[in-house]
Amino acid sequence: MVNETQHTCSASSSSKSDGGSSSGSESSKDSSRCSTPVLDADRHERLREKMRRRQDSGDKWFSLEFFPPRTANAAVNLISRFDRMGAGGPLFIDVTWHPAGDPGSDKETSSMIIANTAVNYCGLETILHMTCCNQTKDEITGHLQKAKRLGLKNIMALRGDPVGEEWEEEVDGFNYAVDLVKHIRNEFDDYFDICVAGYPKGHPEAESYEADLRHLKEKVFAGADFIITQLFFRSETFLKFMKDCQAIGITCPIIPGIFPIQGYHSLRQLVKLSKLEVPQEIKDVIEPIKDNDAAIRNYGVELAVSMCRELLDSGMVHGLHFYTLNREVATTEVLKHLGIWKEDPRRPLPWAVSAHPKRRVEDVRPIFWASRPKSYIYRTQEWDDFPNGRWGNSSSPAFGELKDYYLFYLKSKSPREELLKMWGEELTGEESVFEVFTCYITGEPNKNGHKVTCMPWNDDPLATETNLLKEQLEKVNRRGILTINSQPNINGKPSTDPVVGWGPSGGYVFQKAYLEFFTSSEIVTALLKVLKKYELRVNYHIVNVKGQNITNAPDLQPNAVTWGIFPGREIIQPTVVDPVSFLSWKDEAFALWIEQWAKLYEEESPSRMIIQYIHDNYYLVNLVDNDFPLENCLWQVVDDTFELLN
Amino acid sequence: MVNETQHTCSASSSSKSDGGSSSGSESSKDSSRCSTPVLDADRHERLREKMRRRQDSGDKWFSLEFFPPRTANAAVNLISRFDRMGAGGPLFIDVTWHPAGDPGSDKETSSMIIANTAVNYCGLETILHMTCCNQTKDEITGHLQKAKRLGLKNIMALRGDPVGEEWEEEVDGFNYAVDLVKHIRNEFDDYFDICVAGYPKGHPEAESYEADLRHLKEKVFAGADFIITQLFFRSETFLKFMKDCQAIGITCPIIPGIFPIQGYHSLRQLVKLSKLEVPQEIKDVIEPIKDNDAAIRNYGVELAVSMCRELLDSGMVHGLHFYTLNREVATTEVLKHLGIWKEDPRRPLPWAVSAHPKRRVEDVRPIFWASRPKSYIYRTQEWDDFPNGRWGNSSSPAFGELKDYYLFYLKSKSPREELLKMWGEELTGEESVFEVFTCYITGEPNKNGHKVTCMPWNDDPLATETNLLKEQLEKVNRRGILTINSQPNINGKPSTDPVVGWGPSGGYVFQKAYLEFFTSSEIVTALLKVLKKYELRVNYHIVNVKGQNITNAPDLQPNAVTWGIFPGREIIQPTVVDPVSFLSWKDEAFALWIEQWAKLYEEESPSRMIIQYIHDNYYLVNLVDNDFPLENCLWQVVDDTFELLN
Repeated sequence: MVNETQHTCSASSSSKSDGGSSSGSESSKDSSRCSTPVLDADRHERLREKMRRRQDSGDKWFSLEFFPPRTANAAVNLISRFDRMGAGGPLFIDVTWHPAGDPGSDKETSSMIIANTAVNYCGLETILHMTCCNQTKDEITGHLQKAKRLGLKNIMALRGDPVGEEWEEEVDGFNYAVDLVKHIRNEFDDYFDICVAGYPKGHPEAESYEADLRHLKEKVFAGADFIITQLFFRSETFLKFMKDCQAIGITCPIIPGIFPIQGYHSLRQLVKLSKLEVPQEIKDVIEPIKDNDAAIRNYGVELAVSMCRELLDSGMVHGLHFYTLNREVATTEVLKHLGIWKEDPRRPLPWAVSAHPKRRVEDVRPIFWASRPKSYIYRTQEWDDFPNGRWGNSSSPAFGELKDYYLFYLKSKSPREELLKMWGEELTGEESVFEVFTCYITGEPNKNGHKVTCMPWNDDPLATETNLLKEQLEKVNRRGILTINSQPNINGKPSTDPVVGWGPSGGYVFQKAYLEFFTSSEIVTALLKVLKKYELRVNYHIVNVKGQNITNAPDLQPNAVTWGIFPGREIIQPTVVDPVSFLSWKDEAFALWIEQWAKLYEEESPSRMIIQYIHDNYYLVNLVDNDFPLENCLWQVVDDTFELLN
Repeated sequence: MVNETQHTCSASSSSKSDGGSSSGSESSKDSSRCSTPVLDADRHERLREKMRRRQDSGDKWFSLEFFPPRTANAAVNLISRFDRMGAGGPLFIDVTWHPAGDPGSDKETSSMIIANTAVNYCGLETILHMTCCNQTKDEITGHLQKAKRLGLKNIMALRGDPVGEEWEEEVDGFNYAVDLVKHIRNEFDDYFDICVAGYPKGHPEAESYEADLRHLKEKVFAGADFIITQLFFRSETFLKFMKDCQAIGITCPIIPGIFPIQGYHSLRQLVKLSKLEVPQEIKDVIEPIKDNDAAIRNYGVELAVSMCRELLDSGMVHGLHFYTLNREVATTEVLKHLGIWKEDPRRPLPWAVSAHPKRRVEDVRPIFWASRPKSYIYRTQEWDDFPNGRWGNSSSPAFGELKDYYLFYLKSKSPREELLKMWGEELTGEESVFEVFTCYITGEPNKNGHKVTCMPWNDDPLATETNLLKEQLEKVNRRGILTINSQPNINGKPSTDPVVGWGPSGGYVFQKAYLEFFTSSEIVTALLKVLKKYELRVNYHIVNVKGQNITNAPDLQPNAVTWGIFPGREIIQPTVVDPVSFLSWKDEAFALWIEQWAKLYEEESPSRMIIQYIHDNYYLVNLVDNDFPLENCLWQVVDDTFELLN
């Protein structure tokens, strides 16, 4: 039997009442280790605690259900959807278990891997569904162990649909969800938060509504932490169900499952599967407009909003669970109407945090992956010393190999045709590459009239912060300093600053100016001459694809380029220029020229050879201006370099 | 056989020549762990490397020899002398081995413990002498193991004087210094740097000058790293000796031993012991003035200066070793005349660093011990996780118990009579205590005309930095806010600032305003009411002797109150307000009332009862103003408190 308990950091806030909190000289060893200051509670609490805290504070919340996609391309799209819908602040998302789709496998489209992606790469609190019928205990345990290893902390325990027509109980097998709940608690103690399903109208196979309630109570008493219900069409259905649950002693949170009607056919299919009956008043509206998708969706949104309002107004409901059917629009609209879609501009750290338990205390990363956080998380997934927090201890483990292909690793979200339109059907020389970089910066269309909205090193449009540097960036890209990462210097802006702020309020954030670019060896030669004048002020690393490395960094030490000072906390320095990991980043940065760009063209074609030439001959350069309180000197460095070349 | 190698951090600076340094993707695991930015070389190099670096750079240096004192009081004085003479920048000091004084014991006056104090508490690179004759291998190994445990890294290997009249070789024993050198290398590999003695006139017992040179060569070839010579009276004596050494293949550094004549009797005694002859021209000057100490010392200084100048001018000598006889004036004068006494205003960190190898990477301490660094080092001597650097990892080990008495621990440097004059022969009430605190701040004499130059919590006069707050401090002490520690807020001053700067040049230092004081429960009650207005801005910890603790610190996390940003480095936050260690400091801070102050008076005397009352009833308070870019609000907090009381 595996009995593992998780070491969590106490995130209870100290009493701020009259006399303050009284404590003796005792203190937890953990409390001083978890020094990451930001959204502590959100990063350290388990799901059931978050739920309880929201209930206590009266903050309404929502969650989103997705199913695993069928193809790798659909998976790439789903990940983007996770990011976009994650921005609205769901308390969690959940991923259904598709027994037919090899759900526990390592396939990019399996339930397990989609849930893994949501937790690790999108930073979302995630529940993985798991069904138990027709599976052995060992299989189930294997799935659970894998889920745990991947950082999943929450399981929705289901029976699942029997395979044959007539379902029979297996002796010693998993026959009901309650068997799975018991198994999880037996084998994994309190490690997982467990969710179970509730049926406001009773399970279709249950003897009676009352019998089904008793089954639900069994599941809860076996160790489930909360309940998510099957969809329903009237708020009174849910509210009655909830009262009935409470009446027989079920006290855990019960979350209503909301299904915004999004189309005639999807509704019919779902109703068939769930053996629910659509109320006549809904049928009456839908039937006449069944071929008008937009009208049905509008009606569905309206209906869902009004039902959700009734639920929330009842005072009995604190959170709403949405069956999204992997679609974005309807659910987002409902949430926005309800006012519980909350795009929180506060960033806990300058980069997107992962929700894997072992990365909870991660508070420093190299700046190089600023636009490719998923790749960074992927390449460091084997690291196990995040708890030490310090960059110094984390730089020693090797980065994942570049050959490890993964969904978002070297692949663009956009299809080939679109990339060709943006980056050029045919390149005529290095200048046409400069042009692409320049258009990405300016947002102006290229000469064929297409906007360049992504680059191999950045799958998204330019960050707001980079806009601060736009004019300068345009100038240098036009002349062959091909920028892929930059940040302005910041000398103590409030941590609540909408553009550069991060961390809890009441703090101050700082940055050293940073500039990273590819450029030719001619420019590097001139640049090095210029840099001599800035020896004491500017740190540089210059490397080509072969690994020839020129630097003035002392002793291969990291240089902190982003840091924050907060009330009652240690200093946080979430971003560093680390000479050691720069060489791992270099491999990735150069590979992207080939994998994303060169391979758009035929082998031996002139376009491909131009990119190949740049890949083989250009240098990757990064510059840090250490004198953050003064005006950024990096533009002067670049200007001096151009002047020297003239 | 014990074969231990030491893990040192590479401190080699990167090439800053034309092309910069070229390196592959390899890097040492250590290099990224040693992130303490400051005077890296000085903290991380071993003595022989420091010597080599000074020789390469042409920086002349000096070292100082001391012998262990006879009494504990003399030891306290010697430690103060270490601190004062350490300020001049010796490359190392050495402590002689007194076989008759139980030199390896734990006595406060033993050679071992004096050397330990120099390394650990005064932060001085230290050589411990060790003689071998009449000792077993096991005894010697025991001494060496203990030295290593205490953080000593350098041994001067000597034969020592035989005990009896006629000395005979022991079979298998240690008969010569070379046996000790071999033994150290056999048992401790390369752990220690080893120094041996050279005799410019030949050892008095040697068959001949040439035979003695051959013995010296044997010692060097057995593993000695450098040579310090016996004293001599003419520079040509040393220079000839050095050439003769080189001629027979001795290439290690040879450091001349300089003996500034400080008195007639000490000269005679030394000459007798060392069997040297004083040149006639010196005798001719000294004999007529033998009863005039000042005249002899002036002559000695003059003579030493001129001889040292000749040595340095020869180009063969890079460092000078001084036989101080535990006296300060003559040696200091010689060094100042020579211009090699260098009080370096640059502080590597805001607090005095220890030279123990395991504390090399220590870069954070609680602010509470700012005026009692030796006590802090003593109470944390059992900690072994300084390499992790982070405060978070270091706060868990227990602090040394208060009952552990030690030289400088609860004892004042000043004698009882002097303390009574400063702190009052007779106290008439709490106000007379306020008066003492106020006089310490202002520097004005007390009503009996005595200046208060130390306090139980600070054995030295007020720090320059505290002078910035003098006016405010005076005002609040007069009214019973008895301050024992404070710092102003600093928003990014250059690291070279003569008052608040620290660390390498080119950086910026920051501080949050801090104030720590004892005060009555009446004032605490008012203060807590006032603090409610400052809840988001000011962190506080308020504790009485019983440990009743009132705080608004989140999750017992440390609050960084001093930090620095440097070119090409991680952020350093050398000082924190740590809620956990505050409770250990509280014990010490309250104990000092009793141990240093109350015990000056008779038991049951009114004066003693006044101090006892304060000890039993006052609170120890610390306040941090987190808004370091704004004007310090702590004075306003105190003013508001007084206003509320009126």
